[in-house]
Amino acid sequence: MTTVATSVADLAQKVKAAAPHVAALSTGEKNQALRLVAQELVAATEEILLANAEDIARVEAEGVVATVIDRLRLTPEKIAAMAQGLEQVADLADPVGEITAQWTRPNGLSFTKIRVPLGVVGVIYENRPNVTSDAFGLCFKAGNAAFLRGSSGAFASNMALAKVIRRGLQQAGITPDAMVLVEETSREAAVTFMQQRGTIDCLIPRGGPSLIQSILDHATVPYVIDGDGNCHIYVDQDADLAMATKILVNAKMQRPSVCNAAESLVVHQKVAEQFLPLVVDALNGVTLVGDAAAQRISPSIGPAAEEDFGKEFLDLKISIKIVDELSAAIAHINTYGTGHSEAIITADQTAADRFTQEIDAAAVVVNASTRFVDGEEFGFGAEIGISTQKLHARGPMGLPQLTTEKYIIHGTGQTRS
Amino acid sequence: MTTVATSVADLAQKVKAAAPHVAALSTGEKNQALRLVAQELVAATEEILLANAEDIARVEAEGVVATVIDRLRLTPEKIAAMAQGLEQVADLADPVGEITAQWTRPNGLSFTKIRVPLGVVGVIYENRPNVTSDAFGLCFKAGNAAFLRGSSGAFASNMALAKVIRRGLQQAGITPDAMVLVEETSREAAVTFMQQRGTIDCLIPRGGPSLIQSILDHATVPYVIDGDGNCHIYVDQDADLAMATKILVNAKMQRPSVCNAAESLVVHQKVAEQFLPLVVDALNGVTLVGDAAAQRISPSIGPAAEEDFGKEFLDLKISIKIVDELSAAIAHINTYGTGHSEAIITADQTAADRFTQEIDAAAVVVNASTRFVDGEEFGFGAEIGISTQKLHARGPMGLPQLTTEKYIIHGTGQTRS
Repeated sequence: MTTVATSVADLAQKVKAAAPHVAALSTGEKNQALRLVAQELVAATEEILLANAEDIARVEAEGVVATVIDRLRLTPEKIAAMAQGLEQVADLADPVGEITAQWTRPNGLSFTKIRVPLGVVGVIYENRPNVTSDAFGLCFKAGNAAFLRGSSGAFASNMALAKVIRRGLQQAGITPDAMVLVEETSREAAVTFMQQRGTIDCLIPRGGPSLIQSILDHATVPYVIDGDGNCHIYVDQDADLAMATKILVNAKMQRPSVCNAAESLVVHQKVAEQFLPLVVDALNGVTLVGDAAAQRISPSIGPAAEEDFGKEFLDLKISIKIVDELSAAIAHINTYGTGHSEAIITADQTAADRFTQEIDAAAVVVNASTRFVDGEEFGFGAEIGISTQKLHARGPMGLPQLTTEKYIIHGTGQTRS
Repeated sequence: MTTVATSVADLAQKVKAAAPHVAALSTGEKNQALRLVAQELVAATEEILLANAEDIARVEAEGVVATVIDRLRLTPEKIAAMAQGLEQVADLADPVGEITAQWTRPNGLSFTKIRVPLGVVGVIYENRPNVTSDAFGLCFKAGNAAFLRGSSGAFASNMALAKVIRRGLQQAGITPDAMVLVEETSREAAVTFMQQRGTIDCLIPRGGPSLIQSILDHATVPYVIDGDGNCHIYVDQDADLAMATKILVNAKMQRPSVCNAAESLVVHQKVAEQFLPLVVDALNGVTLVGDAAAQRISPSIGPAAEEDFGKEFLDLKISIKIVDELSAAIAHINTYGTGHSEAIITADQTAADRFTQEIDAAAVVVNASTRFVDGEEFGFGAEIGISTQKLHARGPMGLPQLTTEKYIIHGTGQTRS
């Protein structure tokens, strides 16, 4: 009988063995395989939908909430979009082989720093089954084998998608182990997965705070945290208030459930009296909670608990803080922010410069919506996530962030004295 | 009564509060402070030596081995070298503020990617007290506050050094909390230290396998592993054997206790008969252990256990493996290596290219000694360590590796549609 631990470890060995083969593929071979897998996904629409229906029926019976079921539900359009996503990745520039630095030392040694695949990229993700093909595509294009572990809710869908992707790889003459999905969806399997040190070269968790905490507690493999976005919009005393209103509505309301949506509004006291009524009008349908100063200005603003300022609502709710100067805004944001995306609305260049310099976040935005902080909007073509950590990658992660570098040193017999 | 945990956490708050001040310093201010601290170190030679004598007396009484005592012992020359090291760091280019990418999107948003300090860099290190000033200097020049935790053996020396460094900072008008040393040297303090998530932006361990394991088991802060170097020299069938001998002697014998020293020799069978007798002669005083094929060639080669091939001896000992082709050499090295530095000696360009492409290590060297893999020899001026991981930094880490990047986005009111 195989235990969960040995079954995950066995799969790890397979994907590890496949990694050098993926790394050695040419750009053309990778692109051709991505296009074949895309065709295969569309051709297998019925097979995938059947598996998905099984998942939907099961989670519905379990009484899972509607928004989760929506994320889980696949349609022919969604499958076509997954296929198109793979074709787009095929069109992106291959980061592998890029020479990022080159120099020669006085002793004649010549140094080349070159971009190479990481090896095996692990991804742990929650319900959305499209991550199975998206993550595979990006990892593969960057020359990596993909080791995936989805959630129990999407078990049948992910299994079907993995089967189709592996079939496409095989048709392209590539080892199907370039993409391995862990079938076990238990917590034990997740913990074993994040401890495959020596196999997983980089682990990317795509999920909520409990997954992140589990990574911090248990992971022994290197990881990049795709964390929460408690994003702020700071409206400075010199802000164009019409612009501020428009940006705030976009950042809060366009898609409240995503990490680059605004969760908190910080307003300079000099414009608070004038601006907050505009906010109350414009954020129609949004629950507003604020500090005492904000509440004094508008009865539509309820009291904010201390913890509200640190919360990623992911919902039609926003916290409001009034500050008496720019430095208080910066201090507030650096205290409660999660290092994702923070915006200032101001016509004052000096204030903008101080804000962009002193705010400690992946992206600092001046006079635009925080919603622009993602790989597509950055022009990266696609993203595997948005890093809120400072090491390796910060902000939207595209293909180059799925690689590492290597030094190659050429000599003519040099020894060190 | 304060516990170890609260005392470490209190220090963490101090260093965290200092970090924005360090980040805001100009290059000139940082360089002036480094030079003042250097002067202060030399001026305090007597004070430091007195503290060091206390450490030496204590560890001698404890019966610690001579090599450890050697590393611990300070002299006026060593203190002068520490001061000179800080002056050299002052002379290095400041990585902070470098614009690493810049572009504009069709919607008019302008993107700037800029190099910024990490914030707080933590370093846990073993006996060498010079790390106290070296680590401070590099962290500080890159705009970071340094949070240091030395070993119990060097307790008094480190305390004295920290006091002198903090005095120098104060003279330069900079908060002394730009460098904070944890006084507690217990294991509990080390674990608490590596769990200061939210304070330590990057932890760099400088120590042996047990420290690394403790980091893997307990750290919740981001870290960069400065790991073992089980470095190989592969002598190809087309190697110039005189060159190979010279390089092997340098890589093995010049300084056997360092991570870029060679620990294993891999030889193509076509040249083994001719080469191994040269090796036996040249590596006079080195214990040779090899596989059956190597032992058949020379009676001076003892049997190697399986584990010898995976071991970083850090001593005058080397393992020898005979392979029947290049791909077997690559497979052997990728199995037993630690991803540090691997060398091939060959006149065959095709073999060299395959080796540099397929070996999975931070540095791959052709026809030169692995001993060149360090920050000084790379031309980085100084290094805080050599990363054997693939994320964030790989290979020698200089000042840029002690920074992160931030995106600054300027708009004119753009919202996402």
